[in-house]
Amino acid sequence: MKLYTYYRSQASFRVRIALNLKGITREDSFLHLEKGDQFAAAYRAINPQMVVPTLIDGDIKLFQSLAILEYLEEQFPEPPLLPADAQARAWVRGIALINAADSHPLIVPRVCHYLTDVLKVSDEQRLAWIQHWLGAGLQAIETLLAEHSASGVFCHGDRPTIADICLVTQVTPAKTFDLALDPYPRLMRIYESCMAISAFADAHPSKQPDAE
Amino acid sequence: MKLYTYYRSQASFRVRIALNLKGITREDSFLHLEKGDQFAAAYRAINPQMVVPTLIDGDIKLFQSLAILEYLEEQFPEPPLLPADAQARAWVRGIALINAADSHPLIVPRVCHYLTDVLKVSDEQRLAWIQHWLGAGLQAIETLLAEHSASGVFCHGDRPTIADICLVTQVTPAKTFDLALDPYPRLMRIYESCMAISAFADAHPSKQPDAE
Repeated sequence: MKLYTYYRSQASFRVRIALNLKGITREDSFLHLEKGDQFAAAYRAINPQMVVPTLIDGDIKLFQSLAILEYLEEQFPEPPLLPADAQARAWVRGIALINAADSHPLIVPRVCHYLTDVLKVSDEQRLAWIQHWLGAGLQAIETLLAEHSASGVFCHGDRPTIADICLVTQVTPAKTFDLALDPYPRLMRIYESCMAISAFADAHPSKQPDAE
Repeated sequence: MKLYTYYRSQASFRVRIALNLKGITREDSFLHLEKGDQFAAAYRAINPQMVVPTLIDGDIKLFQSLAILEYLEEQFPEPPLLPADAQARAWVRGIALINAADSHPLIVPRVCHYLTDVLKVSDEQRLAWIQHWLGAGLQAIETLLAEHSASGVFCHGDRPTIADICLVTQVTPAKTFDLALDPYPRLMRIYESCMAISAFADAHPSKQPDAE
């Protein structure tokens, strides 16, 4: 498979982890989002949203990281990234979406550029914005973990799911942006469990060939 | 089932459509997001993110609209809201996520309040922000529809899927916020096809008992 990726992209990070967990090898094609590689006509033809990741599987073009994770789960069921029963699957998907659909969209490069370039917010205001939305998502996840009896080493059960993938990809930028993480002990314990697994560690932004 | 809902919430609208399509009756519990009902301790105990919707199915508590749609699809497979083959499912989920994970999160009440209360943006700037992000998502969906041979009356195939649900819930606020919609003819044709179906029309914000 071929992955269009950027080392710092949370969404690319999610797909890298899932591919590693499933044991699927990939060829990376790097785009530098801060330099605007995603706006080039050639990439726009591949991904009209002009975002990463895009995953190419043969003649199939896949976009949106959670849709890609569901595709990988359906096509390559082992090891599973979702629990077996519907209630647990919904809970795991819900945790994943708190990251992917509520926190992450607010801090992506195009939104930060709009804040700076159009709304003329200061660097301090932009940093406070990023910390606010990352923190709101982490707080919600921490509370949900506390009331979920099947959480512990991982968000649900004894192996990583898409909830853990999304938890890790939210904690990583929280560290980058100096958010205090001690209010989230359950979540951080899970983060450490995950990062001890090579599929997660090898997917970390700092380990990518395009890392700066 | 019991649905915690707000008439203007795109995410509640998605769940209302899906329940209607599946023929599942519900009891509504209304929260007024602009009056802050979601911050009350009793609701926070139900939904720590303090957002709608929350769906209660017996003793199961479900949160995050796309996780709820996937749950309904797994538990009540007829009529299906996802196509059968993995490639088409990924495309449909990708379209849904352009709305749910990239456009909608930027215009929810809590974000608009942050823009106004913390960043002190003007009413005109806030409206331009909303129109910008709704338009960016609609443009990407329009382009993807143009290259997708299975789109036409609906986003994919001959019956509505979660992609159509999310398309409708993005067009509706675009109308509210006076966004010009003529650049999106494919998407608007699908919107009209959907709104001719009572499951969609009955779920519209204006038809809800808490509509103002």
